[in-house]
Amino acid sequence: MQFQSLDEIATLAERLPAADEAARAAALARQNSLTKPPGSLGRLEDLALFMAAWRATDRPRITRAQALVFAGNHGICAQGVNPYPQSVTAQMVANFQAGGASINQLCRANGADLAVVALDLDHPTADFTEAPAMTEAETLEAMNRGAAAVDPGADVLILGEMGIGNSTIAAALASALFGATPADWVGPGTGSDEAGLKRKIAAIEAGLARHGGLGGMATLAALGGREQAAICGAVLAARENRTVVILDGFICTAAAATLYATDPRLLDHCLVGHASAEPGHRRLLAAIDKRAVLDFDMRLGEGSGAALALGILRAALDCHNGMATFGEAGVDGAEGA
Amino acid sequence: MQFQSLDEIATLAERLPAADEAARAAALARQNSLTKPPGSLGRLEDLALFMAAWRATDRPRITRAQALVFAGNHGICAQGVNPYPQSVTAQMVANFQAGGASINQLCRANGADLAVVALDLDHPTADFTEAPAMTEAETLEAMNRGAAAVDPGADVLILGEMGIGNSTIAAALASALFGATPADWVGPGTGSDEAGLKRKIAAIEAGLARHGGLGGMATLAALGGREQAAICGAVLAARENRTVVILDGFICTAAAATLYATDPRLLDHCLVGHASAEPGHRRLLAAIDKRAVLDFDMRLGEGSGAALALGILRAALDCHNGMATFGEAGVDGAEGA
Repeated sequence: MQFQSLDEIATLAERLPAADEAARAAALARQNSLTKPPGSLGRLEDLALFMAAWRATDRPRITRAQALVFAGNHGICAQGVNPYPQSVTAQMVANFQAGGASINQLCRANGADLAVVALDLDHPTADFTEAPAMTEAETLEAMNRGAAAVDPGADVLILGEMGIGNSTIAAALASALFGATPADWVGPGTGSDEAGLKRKIAAIEAGLARHGGLGGMATLAALGGREQAAICGAVLAARENRTVVILDGFICTAAAATLYATDPRLLDHCLVGHASAEPGHRRLLAAIDKRAVLDFDMRLGEGSGAALALGILRAALDCHNGMATFGEAGVDGAEGA
Repeated sequence: MQFQSLDEIATLAERLPAADEAARAAALARQNSLTKPPGSLGRLEDLALFMAAWRATDRPRITRAQALVFAGNHGICAQGVNPYPQSVTAQMVANFQAGGASINQLCRANGADLAVVALDLDHPTADFTEAPAMTEAETLEAMNRGAAAVDPGADVLILGEMGIGNSTIAAALASALFGATPADWVGPGTGSDEAGLKRKIAAIEAGLARHGGLGGMATLAALGGREQAAICGAVLAARENRTVVILDGFICTAAAATLYATDPRLLDHCLVGHASAEPGHRRLLAAIDKRAVLDFDMRLGEGSGAALALGILRAALDCHNGMATFGEAGVDGAEGA
């Protein structure tokens, strides 16, 4: 998938695959034949049906799971929104590559192949209080790098991010897309104190004054960053392959929300892996009408909550595919309690 | 572990191992050195510290995980509390043994060795509206069978149950132990309709009238069943080995709650795997002061929610043991956002 202009995203949903309702219905019929009271596996059943609809089969399996972590640096750091230097972004990328981060352990535990894509870390985006963070060409280039990184054979794609300053980017995007005040979307991110929070809010207010009232993709360019654009590109490329996406926490969801603001259908194939402890995430989940798979008070990013949710998705399909039916097991009608 | 009398349980906590606070503190120091903002893995960090305290090491691992499902039949079924015949209990035990049930898939997915213990299925307990469900000798025998089934080398023990009629048993135990009305504890179980719910409530009211006001272990004998007693025996045997227990849903938790009512410390080494959709479970979790690991609208029993939670516990320890420290990774102080 190659993007030529940001305007084309608005009409993309018409051309991309939709959920296969026949496969979903066939999977539901199977669920109701399995040796358990109908519905008793709760959200595990919902997840199995979601996979069936998007993989277009009544017996979906996860043979290949890919995890992509995109990293970028942000000009907004000049406004003092983060207590850590931007060099930490590259240090953490090195940690991902050496296998020492949380996302490495969670991908190994849940059977996902991890790739890390560092996006021009030496050239931060522009400070959005002074200019659009990215030109359209820069935005498209990052989207195309995101799309190009997607494995077309993956059943599931986990998305994560790393970038000093990017909780400010996420709050700016959410505020521009869904209203409320910047203070409603801002949280401590990685350890901001009260003065740091005030600087985050002031920076976002300045950004909104300069770039408010734009559509979803123009907002991505004006207030976002390269890892946010790459996430959007990856989400769309996955849809072309009918790959189910698991978004991570506040920052990842805010990036994808620029697609939702463009056309809500563009996130129909996406799950959100967890509800972050970063306070804006719950408000954001309500705005994009998604319920997170897990709620673990996590606020790390990197795709960590999405990778954890992959284990749940695998368990849901293990039950869906592996359980005996009432007929196969010779059980009368329903199970006990 | 061998139980000689129900009275001895009241003084057992004094003789059993307690949490190792030095190991917990050492594990916390490790967590705070790992390449992430302190606390950012949320409840995964709490789970790692819990395992450290009970396994008495700052680097706990899950080398062996055991799952035990206890099955029993109940005289209370004579009161029409369940739409399915008691023969379904044995049919589901056969399904467990053949590998066709949900618990089989979830144990395989999360690396637990499953054993099913059928407890005198041909001899249901007495109808508690007419007599104590079990004599003390029957209760002790079932507790000892539960304790004997425990693998002393397991790091984690998952507990589950199967028994037609046992959601009525659970509601009766909870009502006797923690008050409120039977209607506050009763839910649909496996597909009871409104008339069935009324019969459940009436049966429990009759049981409470006959056997109310007893202590925890006497309540277990009077209103419980063999699988409930076996769960209690297994919980206590696991404690002797410093094995962390993961309880399942409403029925499993209600069984263990008889220990809590006897001495709250007896459940200190227990997690609850999930909050069940069976409505009494949330009330019960509040009564025993536990927060469930997962909340997935599940209501199957068998240990299914506990087995699902094992995967989360494994992920927590994979992060705890596998991540690099800031020093090892050469990362400055804290990670981005």
